[in-house]
Amino acid sequence: MQPPLKIALAGLGTVGAGVAQLITQNKDIITRRAGREIQITAVSARDKNKNRGVDLSSYRWMDDLSAMASDDDVDVVVELIGGSDGPALTLARESLSHGKNFVTANKAMVAHHGDELATKAEKNGLAIKYEAAVAGGIPVIKGLRDGASANRIERVYGILNGTCNFILSAMEKDGRDFAEVLADAQANGYAEADPSFDIGGVDAAHKLSILASLCFGTKVDFGAVSIGGIEQIKAADIEQAAAMGYRIRLLGLAEIDGDNGGSALFQRVHPYLVRKTHPLAHVTGPTNAVVAEGDFSGRLLFQGAGAGDKPTASAVVADIIDIARGETGPMFGMEQKHLEQLPKAESGHRMGKVYLRFIAADRPGVLAEITAATRDAGLSIESLIQQEANADGTALVSMVTHDGPESAVAETLRLLSGSENLINDPMVMHILR
Amino acid sequence: MQPPLKIALAGLGTVGAGVAQLITQNKDIITRRAGREIQITAVSARDKNKNRGVDLSSYRWMDDLSAMASDDDVDVVVELIGGSDGPALTLARESLSHGKNFVTANKAMVAHHGDELATKAEKNGLAIKYEAAVAGGIPVIKGLRDGASANRIERVYGILNGTCNFILSAMEKDGRDFAEVLADAQANGYAEADPSFDIGGVDAAHKLSILASLCFGTKVDFGAVSIGGIEQIKAADIEQAAAMGYRIRLLGLAEIDGDNGGSALFQRVHPYLVRKTHPLAHVTGPTNAVVAEGDFSGRLLFQGAGAGDKPTASAVVADIIDIARGETGPMFGMEQKHLEQLPKAESGHRMGKVYLRFIAADRPGVLAEITAATRDAGLSIESLIQQEANADGTALVSMVTHDGPESAVAETLRLLSGSENLINDPMVMHILR
Repeated sequence: MQPPLKIALAGLGTVGAGVAQLITQNKDIITRRAGREIQITAVSARDKNKNRGVDLSSYRWMDDLSAMASDDDVDVVVELIGGSDGPALTLARESLSHGKNFVTANKAMVAHHGDELATKAEKNGLAIKYEAAVAGGIPVIKGLRDGASANRIERVYGILNGTCNFILSAMEKDGRDFAEVLADAQANGYAEADPSFDIGGVDAAHKLSILASLCFGTKVDFGAVSIGGIEQIKAADIEQAAAMGYRIRLLGLAEIDGDNGGSALFQRVHPYLVRKTHPLAHVTGPTNAVVAEGDFSGRLLFQGAGAGDKPTASAVVADIIDIARGETGPMFGMEQKHLEQLPKAESGHRMGKVYLRFIAADRPGVLAEITAATRDAGLSIESLIQQEANADGTALVSMVTHDGPESAVAETLRLLSGSENLINDPMVMHILR
Repeated sequence: MQPPLKIALAGLGTVGAGVAQLITQNKDIITRRAGREIQITAVSARDKNKNRGVDLSSYRWMDDLSAMASDDDVDVVVELIGGSDGPALTLARESLSHGKNFVTANKAMVAHHGDELATKAEKNGLAIKYEAAVAGGIPVIKGLRDGASANRIERVYGILNGTCNFILSAMEKDGRDFAEVLADAQANGYAEADPSFDIGGVDAAHKLSILASLCFGTKVDFGAVSIGGIEQIKAADIEQAAAMGYRIRLLGLAEIDGDNGGSALFQRVHPYLVRKTHPLAHVTGPTNAVVAEGDFSGRLLFQGAGAGDKPTASAVVADIIDIARGETGPMFGMEQKHLEQLPKAESGHRMGKVYLRFIAADRPGVLAEITAATRDAGLSIESLIQQEANADGTALVSMVTHDGPESAVAETLRLLSGSENLINDPMVMHILR
């Protein structure tokens, strides 16, 4: 058997502690699968004395991350610090410079600096692995990078943020409004004290930009993701969507757009209406799910726990085992020079159905104004529901359109902007085709 | 860039033709992902002149498979002939003997001879890959072998046969009986003229034995799978199951049984009742889905097309790309010497609920006889439905039991065997917990 693979853990939060626990607890099966022992030879975190529920006293403690990156007794540096820049990024750069393979769970860093890090790893003949950065414990990076590698992927989309899905399915189940469910989720540890990255869609966008690169052979382009969140969704939206046969999910969706002359990369995180017959409509709670549509594979679905210390540790250690086995190809499935840099796709010419919801004053002429605007914008209505007015004198009008270009939706909103009949901005959600 | 990887295709049925088409059609993206060109340098099949819908005239034709296995212009032999023994097995042995890497879609051969072939590949430092052998286009071998590698898998189960799932979901949808739907499926190409391997559960058992090896680090043991099929399922069973909140699926299920003193390997293919809230209840048509429950990952679900020329080709070519990348570890995720050989688990002590269905003569005392038998066997009934008698004077009695040992179910059947009140053997289905 080969000599042990020596790893250093930087960051000992719940995931870091989970990784240490997993390596210890499943030592026998991990050694058999890796073909060699996985040995933790150094650990580091901000606070040496914090109780982490795992005994780390036998590991060598390092206060200096730069020293860790160049330590002779380390083959693989495992970064579980987080943050797109700062110490995590410095550690990545220094580890790769000093000939260490690198494993990370850091979606923000990969989304922002994947190109730089992949180039550096490639130049130095090193592996950089990030299974845990997308969809927690689900092996979707390996599934797409290795499992779907023969395919031209036509579209990739999924539920990439467990907090949002937890909130949406709780709203669905109990008919409660967003703010109330969020407060509950925070109280129960399903949402962060500052949940803006989750509910605003940024976290899902980080992951989407990584998936898009893997699926399409393009450079990671986080800056080109259109991002929307779930803050504006009301219990009434969920109810209306259900009445029309849909459920609401925050999806990240990416595809290559060849319709507008030349190829462009379309990436969007936004709440979508998903038909109840679609598998994603049945994904509830903090679960994640990713769908990739390959030209030969057809529709592939990967589903599982999107977060949590144990599932994330499972993904991190799988990456370490890959390295132990010598399975260490290019970060995004091909050499960096083969990745294309595509422009951001415009959305105006995209065809689709949308859900539009207005909160309007309950007075004559409101429906006439809305329907005149859709007519003038060339947007055709498939179904429309106006609810009985609320006690506060407002009424909710929701509609689903026929297939039409997104430019017509934008034009409808433009025509209605400044309308005295409308309270708040209208809510637009796309319908997954 | 490295020199091309030269492959030989043995077997040019729909899958073989699909592989040739895929390698040609997606040449650019495959070359970028493989880091080198994939070149077909030889092909072979029984009939050279058959029209396969793909132009194969530019490839070198070989009539002699032994010559293919030792050809200097071949790096990888791709076997798409099928059959557990015969020419496929000879080709596998000869290819590995002559230093060729080997890719196969042949579940029967891997189930029966996986141990021998893996040992031979390992001794010669070669890869043997078989992603297409299980669940068609779904990358479940890579997902489990590489993605879940850090986990002690507690249980693996899934819908492993598309024909059966197609038939069961058609019965579910239309309320028709098995024989009628099967005839339709045969007419439409969803079932073979001789469907016995599919509907009898043998095909699913081949796949289950492979999954079990990967998940548990045990030797493939097809002979130890308990196998049942779907032939006895009636429209009335599906209706009764639905009334109690279940759908019926043919599942393969394997787990390590540590309850009976020492570890043993439990493997069963059988129709199961699956709660409507479970993701597998929503898998319809010829789709496959595999669930693995890891101690750290939690429940992972992989879903997609279980058969068909294009999805299967997608899996075959992904294996070829793995080899081109040099990602070529042991066949079952660890060296053969590390795989355990566990005894077959007994089932009598297994606890669970079952669905029992009797077709009885419509006369007084039938229910008393059945319920006396369950009482005497120590089997406790959770719910029971007796339908109105049919025109032929028979009545259907179905029940779901409380949790109990399977030995009590067997005892119930023993007590009722030879009963003059019962027509046909009773039908037993387990309920997925």
